[in-house]
Amino acid sequence: MSAITTSTPMSEVLQLQRSAFHRDGPPSAALRRDRIDRFAHAVVSHSDDLVASISADFGHRPEITTLVSDVSTLAIEAELTRARVGAWMRPRHPWGRIGGAAGRLAGMRTQVQPSPLGVVGVMGIWNYPINLTAIPALSALAAGNRVMMKMSELIPNTSEVFANAMHDAFDVEELAVLTGDVTVSGEFASLDLDHLFFTGSARTGSAIMAAAAKNLTPVTLELGGKNPVVISEKTAADRSAMRRAAERVALSRIANAGQTCVSPDDVYVPELATRSFVQEVFNAWGRVVPDMFEENEVTTLINDAAYDRVVNLIEDAAAKGAQVIGSMRSDDDGEEALRAARILPPTVILGVTDEMEIAHEEVFGPVLAVHTYDDVDDVIDLLAEKPAPLVATWYGPHDPEFAAFVARTRSGSVSRNDFAVSQSLPGIPFGGVGRSGMGAYHGKAGFDTFSHLRAVVGSELPISLATLVTPTADTRLLKVVRQGIAGYTKVLERRRRR
Amino acid sequence: MSAITTSTPMSEVLQLQRSAFHRDGPPSAALRRDRIDRFAHAVVSHSDDLVASISADFGHRPEITTLVSDVSTLAIEAELTRARVGAWMRPRHPWGRIGGAAGRLAGMRTQVQPSPLGVVGVMGIWNYPINLTAIPALSALAAGNRVMMKMSELIPNTSEVFANAMHDAFDVEELAVLTGDVTVSGEFASLDLDHLFFTGSARTGSAIMAAAAKNLTPVTLELGGKNPVVISEKTAADRSAMRRAAERVALSRIANAGQTCVSPDDVYVPELATRSFVQEVFNAWGRVVPDMFEENEVTTLINDAAYDRVVNLIEDAAAKGAQVIGSMRSDDDGEEALRAARILPPTVILGVTDEMEIAHEEVFGPVLAVHTYDDVDDVIDLLAEKPAPLVATWYGPHDPEFAAFVARTRSGSVSRNDFAVSQSLPGIPFGGVGRSGMGAYHGKAGFDTFSHLRAVVGSELPISLATLVTPTADTRLLKVVRQGIAGYTKVLERRRRR
Repeated sequence: MSAITTSTPMSEVLQLQRSAFHRDGPPSAALRRDRIDRFAHAVVSHSDDLVASISADFGHRPEITTLVSDVSTLAIEAELTRARVGAWMRPRHPWGRIGGAAGRLAGMRTQVQPSPLGVVGVMGIWNYPINLTAIPALSALAAGNRVMMKMSELIPNTSEVFANAMHDAFDVEELAVLTGDVTVSGEFASLDLDHLFFTGSARTGSAIMAAAAKNLTPVTLELGGKNPVVISEKTAADRSAMRRAAERVALSRIANAGQTCVSPDDVYVPELATRSFVQEVFNAWGRVVPDMFEENEVTTLINDAAYDRVVNLIEDAAAKGAQVIGSMRSDDDGEEALRAARILPPTVILGVTDEMEIAHEEVFGPVLAVHTYDDVDDVIDLLAEKPAPLVATWYGPHDPEFAAFVARTRSGSVSRNDFAVSQSLPGIPFGGVGRSGMGAYHGKAGFDTFSHLRAVVGSELPISLATLVTPTADTRLLKVVRQGIAGYTKVLERRRRR
Repeated sequence: MSAITTSTPMSEVLQLQRSAFHRDGPPSAALRRDRIDRFAHAVVSHSDDLVASISADFGHRPEITTLVSDVSTLAIEAELTRARVGAWMRPRHPWGRIGGAAGRLAGMRTQVQPSPLGVVGVMGIWNYPINLTAIPALSALAAGNRVMMKMSELIPNTSEVFANAMHDAFDVEELAVLTGDVTVSGEFASLDLDHLFFTGSARTGSAIMAAAAKNLTPVTLELGGKNPVVISEKTAADRSAMRRAAERVALSRIANAGQTCVSPDDVYVPELATRSFVQEVFNAWGRVVPDMFEENEVTTLINDAAYDRVVNLIEDAAAKGAQVIGSMRSDDDGEEALRAARILPPTVILGVTDEMEIAHEEVFGPVLAVHTYDDVDDVIDLLAEKPAPLVATWYGPHDPEFAAFVARTRSGSVSRNDFAVSQSLPGIPFGGVGRSGMGAYHGKAGFDTFSHLRAVVGSELPISLATLVTPTADTRLLKVVRQGIAGYTKVLERRRRR
C-alpha cells in the first residue's frame, strides 16, 4: 500500500497521521473492525515467518512458544476487540440511562463520548515481540487512533517481517512501523505524540516518562518486577497440591528462558516443605527439558550480555553465601557449549539475602530464588515493603489468609493456583502499579487507555450556570446558598454523633 | 487531633502514611464514609472563615463566588461520593456477572478489585482553592488512599484556615496539609508518592511530570486552555438566542475575574452578527457590574504580577493593531484606583492575529477576544490545529454542524448553550486532553483515577496455563494451535472478500 516508512523521517510520519486524524475525525465502527481484521491478518498470515524470525533473533525459540504466546494471543485479542468495539465506542451515561433520560427531559443532554486521542506511539520490546507490541497497537487502532510503532532494536529480523506485513496492510497515515537502534528510540520518545505506550525496564520507563513530560504526552508504562510466589501452609501440607504448585512454578520460571515480565523470581515456601519443594521443581524441569542440547526444546537468552548478566547474578549470590543448585552437572566442555548457545540450565538459589544483587534485580533468566518462612504474616510484611510487582501469586485455597495476602500487598494483579491467570485471560485488565508500571490494557481497559472520555453536555434550560457565580445586587441566591451550607453542616454533625 | 505538619519534614509524613497504609490495608466502606464526612464537615463548618480568608488572599472576592464555586461544589461532591463509594469499591466483573459466574463454575474465579494506590499527593492551585484542591483529595480518600496536600503559596490565609480545619479532623497518618513556598512545591513533586495530582499551568505541569518520572509516580495533570466558544449561524440569526449566548459568554468571562481554567478566551461569531454580539456582551457586563468600585461586586486579580500580565497582553495586542474596547472610560485617576485595587474592567479585543501574545497565552483575566467568521468549517479547521482546550463551547442546536464540531475538534469536554455545563454537573468526568491535561476526576472518574484496577484470578483447573507455552515432545498441542491459526487466517480472508 505504501513505501516502508523507515526511510521517512518520523516527524513527517507524525504530521501525516495527525493531519489525517483531523481531516477524517473519529472512524466508524465498521472502519475500526476492518483495521482490526487487517492487523490480525497481517500477523496470522505471517505466522511461519514470525516463528522463524523470532527464533533467529533469539538464537532459538520453540515454535509453540511463538505460536501460543505471540500469534494466538494477538488473534484472541483481535477477535475480542472486534466483537466489542462497537459497544465500547458508544456514548456512556454518567447518570445511568434513567438519570440521563430524566436529565434530557429536564433540558440537559449529558453524554460521555469515548474519543480517540490522535496519534499513539507504541514502543515495543523483544521478549514477546508480537504480544507486547502488537496488542497495545491493536487497542489504540480500535479506539480510533493513528498508530506509530517502534520495534525493539534487539529483534531486527522480526521487526522486518512485522513491518513489511503491516505496511502491506496499512497506509502510513493509519499505521506506521519504525525500526532502528536506540537513537531512534530516543527520538521516538521525544515526539509530540498524543499518548506513548512503553513496555520495558523501570529504568528506561522513567527516562521515557521524562522525555514525554516535555510534550505533556500521557504515558502507559508496562514494567516488570520480582513477581513473588507464596506457597501457603495448606498447599505445602497437601502432597499433590504441593507437587502441582512446584510444577507450575518450575514451568513458569523457564518459559521463554525466564525472559518474561510476569515470571516468578522468588518463591516463599514453609520451612519444613522447602526440601521437597525444591525436589519437585527439579523433577518438573527434568520431565520437561530432559536434554538441554535438544535444540528445539528451549528458548535461548537474547544475547551474550543477557547471558553474562544472569550468570553474574548467580555468581554474586554464590560469592555472598547463597546455595546454588544447578539442574545439570556438566564438565567444562558442556558449560562452554551451553554458553555458546546461550542456554542457561534452570537453577535454584537458596539463602538469598538483601546484600545480593539478585535480591533486587529482575532476573530475566531461568533462576528461581527459594525462600523459607515460618509465619506467613512475615512474608506478607516483607512483600508489602518491597516494590510492587506486576503479579503476586498465591498457591492455596481462597481463604482468609489469601484475603490478607491480597489486602496487605500491592501488585499489578494476583494469581492464585496458577501462573499468569490474572494476566493472560482475555478481557482482564493487564498492568502494573508502583514500580511495575502505570496504566493498563487488554480488552476494554486497552480501549479506554487510548480513549479520552469526553463529556458532551448540552443545555436547553432558561437559566445559566454562569449566573450562579456572578455577584448581583439580588441577595436571594446568597441567602439560599448560606442556608443550604448551614443545613448540610447540621446533617454532618448529626451523622457524626450517631 | 495532631500537630500541624508544616513543621514535620514531608518525607517523614510520607513514611508515616505509607507505613499506616501497609499496616491497615484498604479501609472499609464505613471508614471511607466517615472520612468523607469529616472532610466535608471541616470545609462547610469553616465556610465563613474560608470566604474571609480567600477574599483576603485575592484582595477581594465576593462571598457568593466562594460559597457556590468552592464550598457548595465540595459539599455536593462529598455527598455524591459518600452515596456511591460502596458501589464503586465492589469487585468488578470483566466478563460480566454471567460470564464471571460461568467461569467460576468452570473453576476460574475472576475479579477486578479497585485497590487504593497508597499515598496520593495533591498540589493545589489558588484560583478555586477549595474546589480544585479539596475535591481531588476527597476522591483520593474515598478510593482508600492516604493523602498529602500541598496548598498554593499564593493563598497563605486560606491555606492556614484549611490546614487547621483538616488537622483538627484528621490524623496526619490519614491526611496531611502542607503549606509553604515554591521550594516546598518542588520538594513535594519530587516525593516518592504513589500518585501525584496537579492543577495549574502547562509549563509547570510539564516540570511536575518530569519530577514524577524519577520516581515512576503516575500523574494527573489538570491544565487549562483557550476554551473557544463558537456562536453558530443559527444562534446568530435568532435575536433572543443570540442575546442569551452573549450574556452567558460575558458572565463566564468575568466570573472570578476570568481567573478560571475553563473560562473562554476566544469567541467566534458570524461576521454579520459581530457588532450586535459585542454590544450584547457589554450590555450584560453593564447589567451585572454597573459599578466596578462597588467593592463587593467583583473578584480582584490575585496579585500585581497577574494584573500587569493581563494589561501587557492587552497592550501588546493594541500595539500590533487589534481594536481594544474597554467597558469603562475613565480618567487617569480612575485607572490608578483600579490598578491599585487590581480590578481590570471587562474588555473585548477585536482583530486578534497570530502575532499577538494573547493569541497563544491563557489570559486568566476578564478579556474576551472576539473573532469573526464566514464559514464555520474554517473555524473548525482552525480549532483542530490549535492545542486542545479544557472545554470547547458551542451555541446552537444539536444538529449536524454541532456534530461536526464535536467530531473534528479535540477538547477535554464540550458544552453546548451554556458555560461549563460539561464540567460542573456532578458525576461527569472532568479533565483535559493534549495540552489541557491528562487524567480525569469528579465522581467515579475521580475514584478510578486514585484506584488501581487489580485483577485477582484464581484457578481450580487441573491444567495449567504454564504448560501451554512449555515445549514438549508431545506435538499434539502444536498441531492444534497451527490448525487454529490457519483456520482463523481463512476466516479473516473470507471477511475481507465480503
